[in-house]
Amino acid sequence: MSAADIAGLARAARLAARQVAKASAETRTRALHAIAAEVRARAADVLAANAADVADAVARGTQPAMVDRLRVDARAIEKMAQAIEEVAAMPELIGRVERPERRPSGIEVARVRIPLGVIAMIYEARPNVTTDAAALCLKSGNACILRGGSEAFRSNAALGAAVAAGLASAGLPATAVQLLPSTDRAQLAELLAQEASIDLVIPRGGEGLIRFVAEHARIPVLKHYKGVCHVYVHAAADQDAALRIIDNAKVQRPSACNAVETILVDRAIAAAFVPRLAALFAERGVELRGDAAVCALAPSATAATAADWDEEYLALVCAARVVDDLDGAIAHIEAHGSDHTEAILTTDAAAAERFLREVDSSTVLVNASTRFADGGELGLGAEVGISTTRLHAYGPMGAEGLTTTKFVVRGAGQIRA
Amino acid sequence: MSAADIAGLARAARLAARQVAKASAETRTRALHAIAAEVRARAADVLAANAADVADAVARGTQPAMVDRLRVDARAIEKMAQAIEEVAAMPELIGRVERPERRPSGIEVARVRIPLGVIAMIYEARPNVTTDAAALCLKSGNACILRGGSEAFRSNAALGAAVAAGLASAGLPATAVQLLPSTDRAQLAELLAQEASIDLVIPRGGEGLIRFVAEHARIPVLKHYKGVCHVYVHAAADQDAALRIIDNAKVQRPSACNAVETILVDRAIAAAFVPRLAALFAERGVELRGDAAVCALAPSATAATAADWDEEYLALVCAARVVDDLDGAIAHIEAHGSDHTEAILTTDAAAAERFLREVDSSTVLVNASTRFADGGELGLGAEVGISTTRLHAYGPMGAEGLTTTKFVVRGAGQIRA
Repeated sequence: MSAADIAGLARAARLAARQVAKASAETRTRALHAIAAEVRARAADVLAANAADVADAVARGTQPAMVDRLRVDARAIEKMAQAIEEVAAMPELIGRVERPERRPSGIEVARVRIPLGVIAMIYEARPNVTTDAAALCLKSGNACILRGGSEAFRSNAALGAAVAAGLASAGLPATAVQLLPSTDRAQLAELLAQEASIDLVIPRGGEGLIRFVAEHARIPVLKHYKGVCHVYVHAAADQDAALRIIDNAKVQRPSACNAVETILVDRAIAAAFVPRLAALFAERGVELRGDAAVCALAPSATAATAADWDEEYLALVCAARVVDDLDGAIAHIEAHGSDHTEAILTTDAAAAERFLREVDSSTVLVNASTRFADGGELGLGAEVGISTTRLHAYGPMGAEGLTTTKFVVRGAGQIRA
Repeated sequence: MSAADIAGLARAARLAARQVAKASAETRTRALHAIAAEVRARAADVLAANAADVADAVARGTQPAMVDRLRVDARAIEKMAQAIEEVAAMPELIGRVERPERRPSGIEVARVRIPLGVIAMIYEARPNVTTDAAALCLKSGNACILRGGSEAFRSNAALGAAVAAGLASAGLPATAVQLLPSTDRAQLAELLAQEASIDLVIPRGGEGLIRFVAEHARIPVLKHYKGVCHVYVHAAADQDAALRIIDNAKVQRPSACNAVETILVDRAIAAAFVPRLAALFAERGVELRGDAAVCALAPSATAATAADWDEEYLALVCAARVVDDLDGAIAHIEAHGSDHTEAILTTDAAAAERFLREVDSSTVLVNASTRFADGGELGLGAEVGISTTRLHAYGPMGAEGLTTTKFVVRGAGQIRA
């Protein structure tokens, strides 16, 4: 596509956004159900397209983990359709009246929830993000431009056709959800310059992609850099519970951004706890990288380097160090945390409250797994992403994060004194 | 200041922000009262500094309107002190628990309000913005870097000394509120590149300054471009009330961004209303620029050019045109509005509701003056600015706009299934 084509695509999205914003909740819900039905009806097309994408990826020698994320089967397609229906069933956001108030002047003031407008989603080769993102944007009254990974080109095109058919059957313009066919970086940069037509860019994926987007965007970006998540095992921790929580936080889904990467062990219990932690990790196949104190207590540990404290492993590897106390844990998190998710494990309520108050990561927990830092688990419904910057949204972000509010004022002839 | 100096100043702000965020509400309130007392105690210093600034500005041939904004007297200083005390008296935001909920997993989830961190305010030569901004940032638990106009250099330095003394007496670091002494654009660009240390930039002032900031910032910017505000006089308007409201919206403070700039008159009442509007403007000294239909009905009107429909006059000038109906009014606002403030004047409830729903400017009103688009009038307390972009804050923004929320999760050993 030429630069002019990309500008035209963005302008078409802006026009479509007005129609989507004006559409009733019923129309948008009808479109979502129609899209789910089209996804199911076109399952064979999607599977064939995906098989071709997967074959190409394998032939190019793509990493097996990426091929796994790319591959969909009949069950995955059914899950996509169900996810769209779940979004459709969520409470309506647009038009919601918040904080109504009569002011001393006599005017009635309220905030009314409205869509942001046009959302650009930039993501990697996971086809389900195409339908998830389209559904969340429509639910929240927005138009969107989707730019998935090149490896999923055919899969996304087949899913895009299902989305377009569903939109059409509800009388909404096909330009409400547009796929950017190219994954060329120069074209991406062109898209990121369309500040008059696009309101928000959400990059999901590797840190390099996110940095590219942040550097080139003239449009606000919802950044989600990385999750270097910590669990601090306090002196007063229930150690059995701590091992269960750390096992879940590290092993249940190590590739997730809310998986724990560094364990901070209080010096007061290190001699008792570190050997148990090392035994757990040995049993679960987790490589343990420790500071000198941890290595002295756990012969299976290898020595951590300075880089380990800032590493998002996304794998069965975990760093661990001994800290002097709560202050030491907070100082380590301030120095190495990524504003994502941190947990304290303790039976000491005062220590817990101080940790929850003083650590300003987007999700802070006491006595629970870091894996709860997730839109669904926290009650937001489907998740658009997890923001690690504080503007607009901080932490897990659902459909509400794709909206804002305007002030609506009803008067009876009031003028300002 | 060298680039290294500016980076150091920003890093100092980041460190101070942690101390301010951890300070109790009582400490921050104490600091605000101490600052107000210091402003009063140093009134003679401030007046002398301001007299020197004003003398320089006059000698340089500065526009009278700018000299007026720069000049402060004893009454203005007392108003600054009172404004700080009003901010101190506002309800505490930091630590506020929002939307607590027990999830099916058994975890207790809440959002807890936290500061953004470091705010950079860029503004023109209005000394009261220095104390207003410092007070709002402290109230919301943030550190700030203030860069006022060069014309107010000495005035701001005197006020900055009062702020520093007040901070010190409450045990808060002087680096919690820092003034950037230079107004050099290259140094401003350097400040705008400190993305690791600064969380938000708020430019207030001319469109050129705001565009410069938006183009150079690697940091999120709260933009407030301009207010091209509209009043639509609907076919079913109470015409006497309409004239009263338009008079207030245009004449009460024409230099304000929420003053009306364009009147849209419904064709059904144009013959009756336009001559009355022209008479009002003639009486009030407002220059009327009309389309052909308006000029035909009002001999005092001059012909508007295409540029008039996008103009923010900030003066006793007003554009007016006749529109066919509600759709015509909405279409004109979509084409020429600046997402700031628009009003419909009508006794027809259905028309009013459609206008309020379909016009997505940040403030929409029925039967009230556009001048109510103001933080104080809408109930936000003191105003940081008025955002015309939809991310994070849209419309008038108070201290709450300088905060965000984190998720706080309390568990009893829960792990994710």
